[in-house]
Amino acid sequence: MTQFDRRNISMVMDFYEMTMANGYFECGDTNQRVAFDVFYRRNPDGGGFAIFAGLEQIIDYVENMNFSADDVDYFRTQNLFGDAFLDYLRTFHFHGDIYSFPEGTIMYPNEPFMTIVADLIDAQLIETAILSQVNHQSLIATKARRIVRAAEGRVVSDFGARRAHNMDAATYGARAAFIGGVNGTATVSAGKMFDIPVNGTMAHSWVMFFGDEFEAFKKYAEIYPNSTTLLVDTYDVINSGIPNAIRVAREVLEPMGKRLRGIRIDSGDLAYLSKKIRRMLDDAGLNDCKIVVSNSLDEFTITSLLSQGAAIDSFGVGERLITAKSEPVFGAVYKIVAVGEGDHFTPRIKISENVEKITNPGLKDIYRVYNPDGQAVADLIALNGEDVDMSKPFRYVDPIKPWKNRSFVGCTAKNLRRLYVKDGRRVEQLPKLNEIKDYVRDQLEHEIWQEEQRFENPHRHYLDMTPDYYEMKMSLLYEARKQH
Amino acid sequence: MTQFDRRNISMVMDFYEMTMANGYFECGDTNQRVAFDVFYRRNPDGGGFAIFAGLEQIIDYVENMNFSADDVDYFRTQNLFGDAFLDYLRTFHFHGDIYSFPEGTIMYPNEPFMTIVADLIDAQLIETAILSQVNHQSLIATKARRIVRAAEGRVVSDFGARRAHNMDAATYGARAAFIGGVNGTATVSAGKMFDIPVNGTMAHSWVMFFGDEFEAFKKYAEIYPNSTTLLVDTYDVINSGIPNAIRVAREVLEPMGKRLRGIRIDSGDLAYLSKKIRRMLDDAGLNDCKIVVSNSLDEFTITSLLSQGAAIDSFGVGERLITAKSEPVFGAVYKIVAVGEGDHFTPRIKISENVEKITNPGLKDIYRVYNPDGQAVADLIALNGEDVDMSKPFRYVDPIKPWKNRSFVGCTAKNLRRLYVKDGRRVEQLPKLNEIKDYVRDQLEHEIWQEEQRFENPHRHYLDMTPDYYEMKMSLLYEARKQH
Repeated sequence: MTQFDRRNISMVMDFYEMTMANGYFECGDTNQRVAFDVFYRRNPDGGGFAIFAGLEQIIDYVENMNFSADDVDYFRTQNLFGDAFLDYLRTFHFHGDIYSFPEGTIMYPNEPFMTIVADLIDAQLIETAILSQVNHQSLIATKARRIVRAAEGRVVSDFGARRAHNMDAATYGARAAFIGGVNGTATVSAGKMFDIPVNGTMAHSWVMFFGDEFEAFKKYAEIYPNSTTLLVDTYDVINSGIPNAIRVAREVLEPMGKRLRGIRIDSGDLAYLSKKIRRMLDDAGLNDCKIVVSNSLDEFTITSLLSQGAAIDSFGVGERLITAKSEPVFGAVYKIVAVGEGDHFTPRIKISENVEKITNPGLKDIYRVYNPDGQAVADLIALNGEDVDMSKPFRYVDPIKPWKNRSFVGCTAKNLRRLYVKDGRRVEQLPKLNEIKDYVRDQLEHEIWQEEQRFENPHRHYLDMTPDYYEMKMSLLYEARKQH
Repeated sequence: MTQFDRRNISMVMDFYEMTMANGYFECGDTNQRVAFDVFYRRNPDGGGFAIFAGLEQIIDYVENMNFSADDVDYFRTQNLFGDAFLDYLRTFHFHGDIYSFPEGTIMYPNEPFMTIVADLIDAQLIETAILSQVNHQSLIATKARRIVRAAEGRVVSDFGARRAHNMDAATYGARAAFIGGVNGTATVSAGKMFDIPVNGTMAHSWVMFFGDEFEAFKKYAEIYPNSTTLLVDTYDVINSGIPNAIRVAREVLEPMGKRLRGIRIDSGDLAYLSKKIRRMLDDAGLNDCKIVVSNSLDEFTITSLLSQGAAIDSFGVGERLITAKSEPVFGAVYKIVAVGEGDHFTPRIKISENVEKITNPGLKDIYRVYNPDGQAVADLIALNGEDVDMSKPFRYVDPIKPWKNRSFVGCTAKNLRRLYVKDGRRVEQLPKLNEIKDYVRDQLEHEIWQEEQRFENPHRHYLDMTPDYYEMKMSLLYEARKQH
């Protein structure tokens, strides 16, 4: 068993979760109910939205959270924690509630796509794992969507495992990329675990092992006549790779009644080469042979290639997808927004030196507001349980321009969040990965403005508030200003 | 048991490793000996070197590699592989040899820090995992070193788990950051697995839960009087956070005979605030209270803060370290360089459309050449087993300026690589993480030119060749040019 397999992922947490938990325990606040919101502040790459991903793994994590005797012994060696608390950890299980957007929901800055309502220690201890999961998968899903958009309907595959930030990043990155819209992955673990189509044919090592390029191609075609895709840039694409591929199509595949499925290039000027290759293949009667390219691709290089008329059918996208190279940090945060008192929750607000770090306090509902054409015109923060009835004009506040008097007219509103975990157990059936992927695609095709999806200067989605929610936030800010 | 724990990391591979493996099997080449080199092409962030990390995990991986019945069934469903090959996979174990730089060795582009000599299928199947591991950990170790250098001796801690690309990236990223020189981590799993000092005190949620900042600080100080570090920016650093911290130092800690260990700020203008806070603390007699800062730090922001005279004792570095944000891709590659024929190996070369992708062929030794002062003046590629005797002037070729006639005079040479895995089992004891960290530090302090360590325009380390190696490569290029 490897070191990797001996891990307890419940231990992937910031140490301060544990110092705080022990502190709450010492203060007798273990079972104090609280609410934490999870939200992010800025779309990656200057985009207009992000895709929420990672929920399935979060639920799996909280359901299984536990500390072994060995883990507890480790905490004991830190000489900071009381024995009663260490005993408490031995039998600890998360038994709180999690409200969340469905996985794959298009989301926007500053709205809580997830809220944890739980006893204080429960809520605190799961912070790091939730953030790491949602930050990673939402980042990659959102990046993948950008790349898929740039490819304009052509096939996109994830080739990123070798440049991923370790094992999980390869596997769950492939999962997230599939949610974002890629067609398949080269990563076997992800293919097996999540039923993602896997693909892959040969590396340069195949050609170099046999030494003779034609011989290498011939062997491959004989073994995989139904899916022969040949890597043609080991020596010289135009003078050797493509002529040898054409020869294999004629001399090996044709006699078997088979066609050459594709060729791949992984270096050189992909625009120039792809056009030249297309002509060579067409001249040889191989019009159905696909051209696959790879080599440090992302939405920007793909857009450039296509604008140059590159003859490309399929993109293998590696390092820039699996690391979200252009902006590899997704900044979701976890903030306490309410503390239970008796049978209700008192909102809490954080005022920061950085204006954008002021939180939206209290328990709340998040609605997506659709116009009569079914397009999402805004998201709306309401008080938890507030009646949001759009059958008549519905007044709202744009918190950036609160002096304006605006209403939604003829719109419908959908409460975006559901209760997924109740008392620590899942209470909602989770969709299959394919269904999550379809859900993403459907939203982007039918609900989300194209103006929010463009790369340059996308329209900023409105995040409005009901008048009652706005008043509550303002009065808390006013109180806080007096106090501090 | 979570989904995370049910994985078999042997399955984290590109699918083409398996299509090629099946192909080699079908061709009867299963046990053909080959050699693959692992090297990278460019230092991240325009730096002068990189730190090799991840070896321990690679060895752990290859020793444990296996496919379960379930994994084999998965491959069967792809309808590409023969039954004999699938049977072969059931009992597959890696049984090759791995030569490698010791973990923590300073390395440079285009030199093979690792070579796998193994049967063809063995060597092919481990490619993806080796690359993912070395690419991730070398990336983070190298980035960490840049940040530690910028901090000029101040304490640096990894706070990155929540922005890491999933669970492994948090754990092994913390490991790599420690190799690179950070003093500790907030990530509990890494602390426990690798005996890295862990640290962490409180989040904003601690302060917000209690509502009253003084009350929150007081409770914390009472529970952790020996390590009280207070987060002072929940409401207003200067008007509330620091005054409350000072009051706790006087009213809670002093009567216990304790001192306030530190304060932390996580927002605002860290240069301005830290200087102002230092004066306030000093005026209150808290000269020994440390100022800890965090908030999107990296080598560039730290350099800027220190150049502004910021009064900072300790940096908590998160997202930009754990993702290596400025350049999140480390591009190590895995290239076949020789094929066994009888009792010797025939070199293979790859000629690419991209000049920098032409490989260094054949089995080789890598020497580091030291001048009489013990400084590393160059690395040297020699033929495998070639006699490199520096007791007299030693002629070498700089492959970028091959017309020059140069010699090492009065130098010593060290063969950088050792045999770590023989017939699939480790044959070399691996150092503890602390020893790897010390090894990195010692090389950078005593062997590696400062001119290679600066951020701007660092000196390029020479990668020279023995005349015999250079001749071998040139003759292969000449042959290849004739063929293709």
